[in-house]
Order: sequence, then structure tokens, then C-alpha cells
Amino acid sequence: MSSGKWELRIHRSHCLRQHIAVTTDPGMGAAILSDLTTEALIPATAVVGIAFALVQWVLVSRVSLSPEKEANGAGNDKNGDSGYLIDEEEGLNDHNVVVKCAEIQRAISEGATSFLFTEYQYVGIFMAIFAILIFLFLGSVEGFSTKSQPCTYSKDKTCKPALANAIFSTLAFLLGGITSVVSGFLGMKIATYANARTTLEARKGVGKAFITAFRSGAVMGFLLAANGLLVLFISINLFKLYYGDDWEGLFEAITGYGLGGSSMALFGRVGGGIYTKAADVGADLVGKVERNIPEDDPRNPAVIADNVGDNVGDIAGMGSDLFGSYAESSCAALVVASISSFGINHDLTAMLYPLLISSMGIIVCLITTLFATDFFEIKAVNEIEPSLKRQLIISTILMTGGIAIVTWVALPSTFTIFNFGVQKTVKNWELFFCVAIGLWAGLVIGFVTEYYTSNAYSPVQDVADSCRTGAATNVIFGLALGYKSVIIPIFAIAASIFVSFSFAAMYGIAVAALGMLSTIATGLAIDAYGPISDNAGGIAEMAGMSHRIRERTDALDAAGNTTAAIGKGFAIGSAALVSLALFGAFVSRAAISTVDVLTPKVFIGLLVGAMLPYWFSAMTMKSVGSAALKMVEEVRRQFNTIPGLMEGTAKPDYTNCVKISTDASIKEMIPPGALVMLTPLVVGTLFGVETLSGVLAGSLVSGVQIAISASNTGGAWDNAKKYIEAGTSAHARSLGPKGSDPHKAAVIGDTIGDPLKDTSGPSLNILIKLMAVESLVFAPFFATHGGILFKLF
Amino acid sequence: MSSGKWELRIHRSHCLRQHIAVTTDPGMGAAILSDLTTEALIPATAVVGIAFALVQWVLVSRVSLSPEKEANGAGNDKNGDSGYLIDEEEGLNDHNVVVKCAEIQRAISEGATSFLFTEYQYVGIFMAIFAILIFLFLGSVEGFSTKSQPCTYSKDKTCKPALANAIFSTLAFLLGGITSVVSGFLGMKIATYANARTTLEARKGVGKAFITAFRSGAVMGFLLAANGLLVLFISINLFKLYYGDDWEGLFEAITGYGLGGSSMALFGRVGGGIYTKAADVGADLVGKVERNIPEDDPRNPAVIADNVGDNVGDIAGMGSDLFGSYAESSCAALVVASISSFGINHDLTAMLYPLLISSMGIIVCLITTLFATDFFEIKAVNEIEPSLKRQLIISTILMTGGIAIVTWVALPSTFTIFNFGVQKTVKNWELFFCVAIGLWAGLVIGFVTEYYTSNAYSPVQDVADSCRTGAATNVIFGLALGYKSVIIPIFAIAASIFVSFSFAAMYGIAVAALGMLSTIATGLAIDAYGPISDNAGGIAEMAGMSHRIRERTDALDAAGNTTAAIGKGFAIGSAALVSLALFGAFVSRAAISTVDVLTPKVFIGLLVGAMLPYWFSAMTMKSVGSAALKMVEEVRRQFNTIPGLMEGTAKPDYTNCVKISTDASIKEMIPPGALVMLTPLVVGTLFGVETLSGVLAGSLVSGVQIAISASNTGGAWDNAKKYIEAGTSAHARSLGPKGSDPHKAAVIGDTIGDPLKDTSGPSLNILIKLMAVESLVFAPFFATHGGILFKLF
Repeated sequence: MSSGKWELRIHRSHCLRQHIAVTTDPGMGAAILSDLTTEALIPATAVVGIAFALVQWVLVSRVSLSPEKEANGAGNDKNGDSGYLIDEEEGLNDHNVVVKCAEIQRAISEGATSFLFTEYQYVGIFMAIFAILIFLFLGSVEGFSTKSQPCTYSKDKTCKPALANAIFSTLAFLLGGITSVVSGFLGMKIATYANARTTLEARKGVGKAFITAFRSGAVMGFLLAANGLLVLFISINLFKLYYGDDWEGLFEAITGYGLGGSSMALFGRVGGGIYTKAADVGADLVGKVERNIPEDDPRNPAVIADNVGDNVGDIAGMGSDLFGSYAESSCAALVVASISSFGINHDLTAMLYPLLISSMGIIVCLITTLFATDFFEIKAVNEIEPSLKRQLIISTILMTGGIAIVTWVALPSTFTIFNFGVQKTVKNWELFFCVAIGLWAGLVIGFVTEYYTSNAYSPVQDVADSCRTGAATNVIFGLALGYKSVIIPIFAIAASIFVSFSFAAMYGIAVAALGMLSTIATGLAIDAYGPISDNAGGIAEMAGMSHRIRERTDALDAAGNTTAAIGKGFAIGSAALVSLALFGAFVSRAAISTVDVLTPKVFIGLLVGAMLPYWFSAMTMKSVGSAALKMVEEVRRQFNTIPGLMEGTAKPDYTNCVKISTDASIKEMIPPGALVMLTPLVVGTLFGVETLSGVLAGSLVSGVQIAISASNTGGAWDNAKKYIEAGTSAHARSLGPKGSDPHKAAVIGDTIGDPLKDTSGPSLNILIKLMAVESLVFAPFFATHGGILFKLF
Repeated sequence: MSSGKWELRIHRSHCLRQHIAVTTDPGMGAAILSDLTTEALIPATAVVGIAFALVQWVLVSRVSLSPEKEANGAGNDKNGDSGYLIDEEEGLNDHNVVVKCAEIQRAISEGATSFLFTEYQYVGIFMAIFAILIFLFLGSVEGFSTKSQPCTYSKDKTCKPALANAIFSTLAFLLGGITSVVSGFLGMKIATYANARTTLEARKGVGKAFITAFRSGAVMGFLLAANGLLVLFISINLFKLYYGDDWEGLFEAITGYGLGGSSMALFGRVGGGIYTKAADVGADLVGKVERNIPEDDPRNPAVIADNVGDNVGDIAGMGSDLFGSYAESSCAALVVASISSFGINHDLTAMLYPLLISSMGIIVCLITTLFATDFFEIKAVNEIEPSLKRQLIISTILMTGGIAIVTWVALPSTFTIFNFGVQKTVKNWELFFCVAIGLWAGLVIGFVTEYYTSNAYSPVQDVADSCRTGAATNVIFGLALGYKSVIIPIFAIAASIFVSFSFAAMYGIAVAALGMLSTIATGLAIDAYGPISDNAGGIAEMAGMSHRIRERTDALDAAGNTTAAIGKGFAIGSAALVSLALFGAFVSRAAISTVDVLTPKVFIGLLVGAMLPYWFSAMTMKSVGSAALKMVEEVRRQFNTIPGLMEGTAKPDYTNCVKISTDASIKEMIPPGALVMLTPLVVGTLFGVETLSGVLAGSLVSGVQIAISASNTGGAWDNAKKYIEAGTSAHARSLGPKGSDPHKAAVIGDTIGDPLKDTSGPSLNILIKLMAVESLVFAPFFATHGGILFKLF
């Protein structure tokens, strides 16, 4: 039996210089694209992406929110097809409604801004402390020496001192964090800018409302993708001024960018996730259950906080999560490339292949967006979901061609990739398959997620049907559905890992993750579309708009629910690949060549690592519970102490609820955040890199399952409830109407699912990614000073 | 950085003969116990264990179930302390009650027997097919050649042909299966024999009822432990007649015994688990929810099936599960020992060390039992739980001494243990720590489980409190509790693995598992006590006995709930250690020396393996749902078609419900059973031993978490409901009484928890163990012919 390592593993005893010799073999050919063109192309596409986002913003801003200009606004139809899409124009001249919408929007926007600014204060403190930690840990590797040292992988060359690495890693960390903050903030701004505009457009027809919501989502998607790319590109070029030919050190320092982006995602996903569900559950428990008033009723003091939550959790949180994945997969690919032939030969174009893929992604997504906003038009409610799904398919097909082009022009026909101590020969078409399989695995995961969470298919309908025998069977069926929904995505991820790992080792995994994330602009656009529509519906309800308009926003929202589930599927799938790539980069950087399950150090790491997602989930679920409880108390207090609130004659104190949610969520994210941030430090320092490898592998393979099942179970319960409420089939009507026993059972399921699908499930992405990237950044320290406990005994 | 393997790994390039030379070093010393004494001691203790079980049976049988003898029975007080324990004698002369009890008991016993016999028909077919498979797969390794061959580990010696291995493995498989069947059947018999007797004794006082239930549990525990030991001992001695000096072949063949025991556990745990919850949920959904009649009401047609379920699921199922663990850990230890210095030097006493530990366990448990039945007396309800917990503590403390004695007399002071290709030197005191840490880890797991599932502590009380805000918060808090309850047990298991692995490699793990299982007789006694008390309560209700008696049986039952949870904790903990030991034995037998996570073959195995528990749980949960639905239909049919049933004037058709539950559970266990049995065969044949190693490690580290969390979540919900119902504190009363909104929310949680804690959770033990032992048995085939897919490409 062979030990199963790739063919080149048997050469491990050969010295590295021989492999370097191999890489300069003239038979390997060079890339078609010149370095200068590459250096021009990447920032150019990033600028195009940002410009496209701004154009979308301008188009959205044409919808006026001030009653005076309303008449003009309607005339300046942005598609130039005056009124073509307008099924009917309802209450267009009701200035009161517009004023009300503008008012609600302002409250939501202010609430979201206030949350984010409070969060940023904590982020600031955290970033400062962690930046110091990074500097101290990495600086201490060589005792803060300012002397140049031999390179880790090419001992005959001289690299920049470890202290420089510490300084630049810290700098990259701060840049990554700031980029994530800015992108998330802008995304939230446009979302809260667009929600009321979507509501107002819904008066003119579903098509107009859809385009407004979708364009706003696109602003978020393109800004994030382009900003991420641009800042990374600029950082690399600036750092190069100091590092010069020491690419090994340069790209090791750049990994800080991924850690920065990912640390922000901790706040965005976990803090935002706790916020959104605390507000939602708190609002529902008192409003719907105790006071028996409808969802989004303006009398509920927590209603603004609930809508704020959609923006900070689903928009800023999801954005920071995906930005983190994007930054991390790029960094993982770059760090492996820097010690492969690309880096050793100083082949800049090939080195920047990951950034070129992202550049191509922006162009592809730009074209894809036009299919939703300009090439096709939504005329009826039932065209919304297909249109969003078409976005995924179109972007995937176009991107496959895009990857082929980039691979063809940017890579030499043959090159070598660093593979745990040895160099492995890879052909450019093999790398094409690595990126493409990641991209397509994402699509498979997306569609499987849709199948298990959309009420158009039997799984959710079965869950709805189980509500007949009560909440207990609903919960059992929902949990079983979530467990079952894990099967195909795991096989898809396993297949991508196998193919990309086999072709190009850990570099293959990193570019597979990048492939899955290459259409991030489109993915984020359809994802952000969901909460914007959700908000639009809330605003319509609060502004007291007609039933017909509410029906349209509900239809937009229902499609958004499914795309949100698909987005979560993508996020988890890419998180799995990214954290494996980071794990690989960590192992390489820590100079481990095998992670053998048959050693106790590794196995206990694996076992404890597999436990961490449970611990973390228990913490985040408890956090939602505690934060929701504080909200419940405040809402109860307001109902009890403000006279006329239930009658609608007095206004609730929305701001206080927003404040309570903000403070509680920030406070409650500390324990799970500490678990994520401290585990690698504690394990690495006390038990060393082998045990840490086990922990990373264990939490990855265990966490991805819980994340998928939790998010799909929650999505299925949500849509089972909506299925009964909508009553669009004879089966659904036999379970309804609202208020029937099966519906009550469905509401219980939906409430249980809320923290699962919006807090604990997606937060696991952060757990598995952040631990991996943190280990990667601290790898030199752990490798030098780690494992104290074993050294003592 | 060292690669983390133990010190002797660096000698891998040395040839094995050199290590053999080391083992014959006279400095190593010999065991104090002579081989002859060992050969006499083991069967002697087994016979003592069986005799003790019979004595307990006789004592239980003194409680008469026929009204005529009742007066004499009461006179012949078994403790000789005529009436000392009798708080009050109530309705002792009500002959009707006795007749009714006897009648109900007969129905339960007949139902259980009928289920088991139906199950055995399928078991028979399955065993026959699987026996043929084992023979064909193992026989084909050397093409059914009858020629002797060089040994796998000592190439210079001649071993028996592979065909002999195939024949004897098949034989051992059948023996293991039959032993498990017999033990489970006898356990079920005594349980259904004792339940009504416990009810009748409850008239005399809680102490008498407790002793009856506990003695019956002890019958089960001792029969199983002693039978398992005796049959294994006899098999080894019989096989030795053929194998002679070829111990390598002998103990490889003996592994079939573990596979046989474990395969039966598949039927017992999964089939029994589906049965018990289908009947329970079916009975509750129609009886409690639709017809609003109390639990255990004799008008409910499924009430007998529900009580039968307790016996086939919790008694026979748990018994077969623990028997499987016991047989597997013994076999894993033996197969590793046979290629260590014990086997190479033909040191029989040291070789049989695992059996000596079990023998000591029987003696220790015998003494421990006397503490519950003779040394102390239960006088009040609140003494029951402490008395049961004392059993665990006493047996653990005594056994620690027992292990020290066995280790001292049976092992040479120094010896070598086979460790993935090399021999590792081990001292006897190191092995003592391996066994002892397993034993104590079991106690830790037991007490943590108690803390999280007993309503005497805050976790369950918090869950009960969350019922105030409805079923949704109850479910969220319950799930979070389950997740949290995983943390300490995983650290306990990790610590045992680390210590025992470090000291004695995979042999250490196997004996640590044996250590945890060494007090199996006591563990099973307190575990079986639970369902017996549960049944006793059901019988009291059905026989219309007074509220006071029902209160006593309820108190017995409440303590039983906690011990059942502790028992499940033990079962999972030992399953984790056992399957790791089997995994190690598999890896050794498949001649793999590293299982490197950094190879794609292994990593995808790990990822998919971690997914399997989810797939399996989805299947078992769906199975319970489908089987329960059939039961619901039948119960509804009877209520609708039998006139006078609701009024109590007509009797329901209990037998039909039992039959439906039986058929449905057998049918529904096929898909999950097939998943368990086919996965190793498919993965091993198509992807080879490396991927299979990944699958085994992945399913182990992921499955153990779900198993613990599912079983504790379910236990916590059950006891949260009981906490509200009992209303023993001001807090509990503020949530009650029965029928209040919080109580209704608690009932929903309890219903959700039923399949989690009694079917899907415990079934995962079988998943992780059975896949590992199956891989071990088929290892030679996979190593020779496996990995077809990779060979093709």
C-alpha cells in the first residue's frame, strides 16, 4: 500500500534547490500576459466595478423620497420605458405615505448607523489590541531582531527580518479590517437608503420594486468585490517597495489582510447575528405572542430594531463574512504561490493569478447584472425567483469561460506548486479545473439549498404537513431535513477538494475557494436583495400601505428568503474550502509535513476541534436568548408604561430598543468571540502545531455540517410557515389559515429556526475560518515557541 | 519540529526481528500469575457471576404474582427484616389488583417476546448472509487456498491459511451474535418478569419496590457480563486447539466475535430504538393530544406496545449495545496483544489481561451490588437517586484497586506493544493508568450527564423556566444545553485517549475502553432498573392502583430517568474509545502506518465521515416518524371503530398495535442499517483503506458529539417536564400545574426529545462502532483488493 501522498512526496529527501532548478526549466514557458498589463488590468477592473456600483446607486437615488419631487421622479423613468412595467399606480400622490416611509427609513438608517458606530468602537479597541498582539507574537520569533535572516524555504537567500514581517503583517491586518468595515458600512448605507424606495416603487408594480432592490444589492456586491481587490492590489504594490525581491516575506505579511477581514467578520456575523435575532425574537415574543399584534406593526417598540437587524445582520454581517472569505482565499493562494515557482521565479502575472480571477469575476458579474436589470424585465410576481436563480446560472457559465481565459493568458503551461515540503508539477489546464470545480460546486450547493428550503419542493411541504400533528413533529421533521440537506453539499465540497487537491495541492484548494467566490458581486447582490425587500415590506406595513402593495413586497421577500438560504450555502461552502486552504498554508508555514491522525497529539486535537462548533453554537444560542430577554423586558415595559401605545395614539420609544439591542449584542458576542480568538493561541502555545492542526481539521469537518444543517433547518421552517400563510395550493390551504393549529405549530418552528439560521449557523463560518487564518498568521510563533506543555513533560 | 510520533516511531526502518529480540530480554520479568491459574480463574469468575445473577432472580421470584400465594410471599421477607422497610401496606389483600397486574405483565412479556422473535427471524437471515459475506471476502484474500502462509507480522514464521481465518472469523461472528441474542433475551425476560412484581412491592413501600427493580437489573447486568466473558474465553480455548501457536491468526479470527456482538446491537439499538419511540410517540399523539386521556391509560390501544418498547429498546437494546462495546474492546485489545510481546512470547496470562480485567470487574460489581441490596436500606424516596449514584462511585473506587491487582499479578513489569509497525516498550504501571483513566473518565462522563439532565440542577431548571415564553424558547434552550453538555465529556475522552495512547498506543486505548466497561454489570443493573421502574409505574396506572403507589413508582422512575441518561453517557463514551481502538486495530491490520490529513484521500474521507452521523440521524428520525404514523393510524382506527373504548367498557386490541410496531420498526431499520453496513464495504472496496481510515476517524469525532448532545437534550427536556409536573419547589410550582401553558411547552420539548434521546442519539454508538469493527474484520480484503476506483484512474 502506498501511503497515499502525491507522487512527488517520495522526493521529500531531495533538497529544495533541485526543485528550484526544475522551475527555471525553459520548457515550462511563460505567461501570455505581460507583467505591466497585469499591473494595469487589475486596478482598472476594480475601478470599473466601483464605477458600476456608483451608477447603480445613482439609478436607485432617482426614486425620490420627498413628496414634492415625487411627481418629477416618476416622470424621469430610469429605464426610459415610461410606465411599461407599471401594472397599476396606486396611491402615487398620497404624500402622507411618502413622508411616513421617509421617516421610517430615517429611523432604520439611524438605528443601523448607531449600531455600527457602537460596534466600531469595540472593533477599534479590539483591532488595536490584536494588532499589538500580532506585532509582539511575530516580532518575538527572532527576538525583535532587525537583522536580515535566511529565508524559510530558500535557505541560501536572504530575507527581510522577522520584525519587518511583524510590522507589515500588523499593517495588512489593519488594512483588511478597515476595508471590511468600509465595505460593510457602505453596503448597509445603500440598503437602508433603498428599502423605502423599494416600498414606494412597489406602488408602481412589482417589476420596478424588484429592480430598485436588486440594483441596491448590486451596489453592495460590486463595492465589496472591487474594494477588496483594489486595496489588496495596492497593499501588495506598496509592500513590494520595501520587500523588493523577498516575495516570501511579502506575501506572508499580506496574510494579515485576510486576518483583518476575517476578524471584522467576527463582529459582523456574530455581533450582527445576535443583534438581528435578539430584536426579531424579542419583538415577536411580546408583539405577536403576548399582545397579539401583527409582525412589523408600528405599535411594537422593537419593530425598528427588528428592521435594523436585517441590515446589520444580513447585509453588513453577510458582507463581512464573504469579504473575509475572499480576502482569506486570496491570501492563502498568494502565500502558497510565493514559495512555488511563481514566487521563486518572480513571475508577477502568474503570482497575481488569484487577483486576475477576481478581476474577471467583476467583469462577468457586471454583464450578469445587466441580465436582471436591462436585458430581461420582471412583469409578474412568479418571475422574480427564476430571475434571481438565472443570475447564478448565467454568472457561473460566463465565469467558466472567464476562468479559462485568465488561466490561458496568465499562467505558463507548466509550473510547480509547493506541496508540504516538496514542489509538485502542475499544468495550467489542471489549475483551470481547480477554479472551475469550486465555482460549479458553489452552484450545486446553491441549488441543493434551494431544493431543501424553498416551499416549491416536497421537503419543505412535508415539514409543513407535519405541523398537522403539532409543533413537536414539525421540529423533528425540520431537524431531520437539515441533517439530510448536508449530504449532497458535503459530497460536492469533497469532490472539489479531491480534484483541486490532487491537481495542485493546497494552492488548488485556495483557488477552488476563489472560484466559488469569483462571482461574489452577483452572489452578494441577490443576497442583499433579500433583506432590502424584507425591510421594504416592513416599511409598507408600518406606513399603513394597502394590502396589494404588501402582497408585492411579500412576493419580493419570499424570493429573498430562498436567495438568502442560497447565499448562506455559498458562504458555508466557500468557508469550508477557504479554511482548508488556510489550514494547508498554516501547515506549510509551520513546517509540518504530515498531520497523522494516528498520533495522540493530533487525534485529541481532532476530537476537541470537532467539539468546538457545539460549544460555539451553545454560546451564540445563549447569547441570542439573553439579548432577546432584555429586549422582551424593554418592550413589555413600554407597553405597560406608555399610555395609548396599544391604541396607536402614542408612539413607542424605538431608539431605546435599538440601543438595548446594540449594547446587548456587543456584550453577548464577547464569550463566543473569545472562544474563537483564544483557541488557536492557547492550543498553539500550550500544545503546539500538531494538536492545533488536529483542532483546525476537526472543527472544519464538524462545523461545516452543523452550519449547513442549522441554516437549512431554519430556512425550511421559515418557508413552511410562509407556505401555510400564502395558501397557494389545496394542500397549503388545508393546513391554514393563519392562526390555525398547524400554523401555530409552524410559527414555533420558525421561531426556533431564527437563531439557528441567522446566528449560530452562519457564525460557524467565522469559527472555522478565523481559527485557521489566525493560526496561519501566528504559525512562525507556534512553530518556534509553541507546545510548552509537551516540552515541560 | 518533531513529527509528533512516539519515540519509537523513529525506529521504523529497523526490522521487526530486532524488536522481537528485545521482547525476549530476560530483564523484562514474567507475570506472577501462572497460565494455569489464569485458565481457571476466568471461567470461575464467570460462573460466579452467572450464579449471582440466578440468586437475584430467585429473590425477585419470591414476590408472588398469583393472589393465593400473596400472603405467604409477604411473610417470606427476603431481607429477613419482616416489615422493617414497610412504610405502610396498602391494598395488600386486593386480589383483583394482583390479577390485573399479572395480566398486564403477561401482555407486555408476550409483546416483547413476539417482537424479539420477529426480530430474530430477520437477525437470522442477516447473520446467515453476512456470515457468507465474511467467509467469501476473507477467503478470497488468498484465493481460498488451504496452504499455510507466512505470518503478516513475523514473516519468518508460518501461519494458518487465510481460508482458516475466514472459517473461524465466521464462526466467531456467529458466536458473538448468538451470545448477544441470548443475553438480551434473558435481560428482557427478567425485566418483564420483574415489572409487575415491582408494582406489587410498591404497595409495601418504596424500599421494597426499589430492591425488586434493582435486583432484576442486576440479573441482566451479571448475566450479560459473565456470559460475554465465558463465551469469549471458551471460544479462544477451542480455537486454540486448531491454531496452536499461531496466535496472530487465532486472535484475528476472534475479532469476528466483536463484529457478531455489534451487528446484533444494530438490531437491538436501532430496531429497538425505533420500536420504543414509534409506540411512545404514536400512543401520545392520539391518546394525550387527540383524545386527552392520561399517559399509560389502559384505554389507549398502544399502551402495551409503549411498555413493550421500554423493554426491547432500553433493556435489550442497551444490553446489546454495551455487550457489543465489551466484545469489541476485548477483541481490539487481543488482536493488538497477539502481535505484541505477549503474543510473540506466547505469554498466556498477559495475553488474557483484558479477560482478567473483566473477571475482576464481575467480582467488584458483585460486592458493589450488595451495597444497594443488603448493606444499605432505602427508607425514603429521596434516598433512591443517591443510592444509585453510590453504586457508580463504589464500583469505580473498588475497581481501581482491582485493576491495580490484576495489572500487578498478570503482567510482566516491562513488555512491548505493537504500535503501527514498530514495538513500543511499556511498563505495567503505565498500563494500570490506561485502564484506570478509562474507568474514571466513565465516572466523569456519568456525573456530567447527570448534572445536565437531572432536574436537581440549574441547567434543566433553566430549560423548564424557558417554557414560560413558549415551546420555541424551550427547544432553543434545550438544544443549547445539549451542545454545552458535550464539552466536559469530550475533554474527559480526549484526556483518556491522550494518556492511554501515549503510554501504550492502540492497546492502551482498547484497555481504557475495557476499563470504562469493567463495571458493566453495575452499569447495566442501574440502567435496566430505569425501564423496569417505568414499566412498574405504567402497570400501576393501568391496574388502577392508588395515587400513593403511583407516586412511589414515579419516584423510582424519576431516578431511573437520570440513571438512564448516565447509562447513555457511559455507552457513548465507551463507544468512542472502543471505535478508536478498533480503528487502530484496523489500521494495523491494513498495514497503514500513517493516516495523513494532508492527503486528499484521507481528508475527503474525514469530511464525508463527519457527515455520516447526520445522514444516519436523519434516517433514524424519519424511521421513527414513519413507524409512529402507522401506529397513530391504528390507534385512531381502534378508537373510531371499537364501540365503548373511550368509555372503558370495551377492551382495545393491544396485540395489533404490538404487531404494527414490530413490523414497522423492523422495516424502518433497513435504510439506516444498510448505511452502516455498506459504507465500509463500499468505501474500502472503491476508495481503499486510506479513505476508509478518514471516514472512520471523521464519523467517530463527529458522531460522538451528536450522540452526547442528542441524548442529553432529550433527557433534559424529559426531566424539565417532570420538574414542572412534580412541582416540588416554588419555582416549579410557578410553572405548573399540568396543563398550564409552560407545561404544554415542556410536553412539546419532551416529545421532540424522545426520538433524539432514545433512537437517533444512541444509535450513533452503533454507527461508529460497527463501521470500525467491520473495517477491522474486512481489513485484509480491503488491503489486498480495495481502492478499485483509484487503481482504475
